[in-house]
Formats: sequence, structure tokens, C-alpha cells
Amino acid sequence: MCESNIYVIPSGVEDDEDGELFLEAVDKLMPEGEDVWRVTSIFGEQKIINGRIKSMHLVDHKILFELR
Amino acid sequence: MCESNIYVIPSGVEDDEDGELFLEAVDKLMPEGEDVWRVTSIFGEQKIINGRIKSMHLVDHKILFELR
Repeated sequence: MCESNIYVIPSGVEDDEDGELFLEAVDKLMPEGEDVWRVTSIFGEQKIINGRIKSMHLVDHKILFELR
Repeated sequence: MCESNIYVIPSGVEDDEDGELFLEAVDKLMPEGEDVWRVTSIFGEQKIINGRIKSMHLVDHKILFELR
């Protein structure tokens, strides 16, 4: 399975490259508006993120959001 | 390996849910500005996309962009 883990960092924090784990095993990411994303894990858990994507490394299973 | 294929659809086209293949086996996606993304495949090929993400289905290895 090729899901990714989502990590988040607070807005304006430049030196936190790792972030905090927000949701594991994410399959789907859908934009719901300006800097609003609905993310769904392979287990069906859904969460909303208010932020924007800072980086995606799919082979490492890592997506990093910067919160707004 | 958990890379994704990137597909693109022209701006304003609502009924094209599949899109056209833009780049295969993408590992990294990095924002470079407002609706500008640098994407890199596992083979090192890089391309720039002027557009925004419309959907991501990681388990299906599919990321869809709407071009600007």
C-alpha cells in the first residue's frame, strides 16, 4: 500500500522540517477551498487541514503541511 | 516503491476526470509559488506544473492537477 503519513508545522516556523504527526496512512487528499484539505486514511478516518502543502516525498510516505 | 503518476486537465474542464498523463513515477512535489509546482520522478526527471491539485489518490498512484 502506498499511503502517506501527514505531518504539520505551525505557520511561520521555518526550522521545523519534521513537523508533528497529524494522520497516518492517508490515501486521499482533496482540496475543499483555499488552503483547506480533506484527508482520508485507508481506515476511513477523515480530517480537515487548514494549511498548505509544504513538501511531498511519496517514496518516504511523507507529506508536510504548514498550518494557517 | 510508492511514487505516483501525475495527470493534468485544462483549466475549466469539468467533465474530464481522468486527465492526460504528465509525468510518471513522481516521488517529490514541491511548491515553488502560487500554483507552481516542481515535480521530480524517481528517475530524476523534473518538470514544472502551473496549476493546482484537484485530487490525490495515493493508493491508486494518481495525482490530478488542473492547469492554470
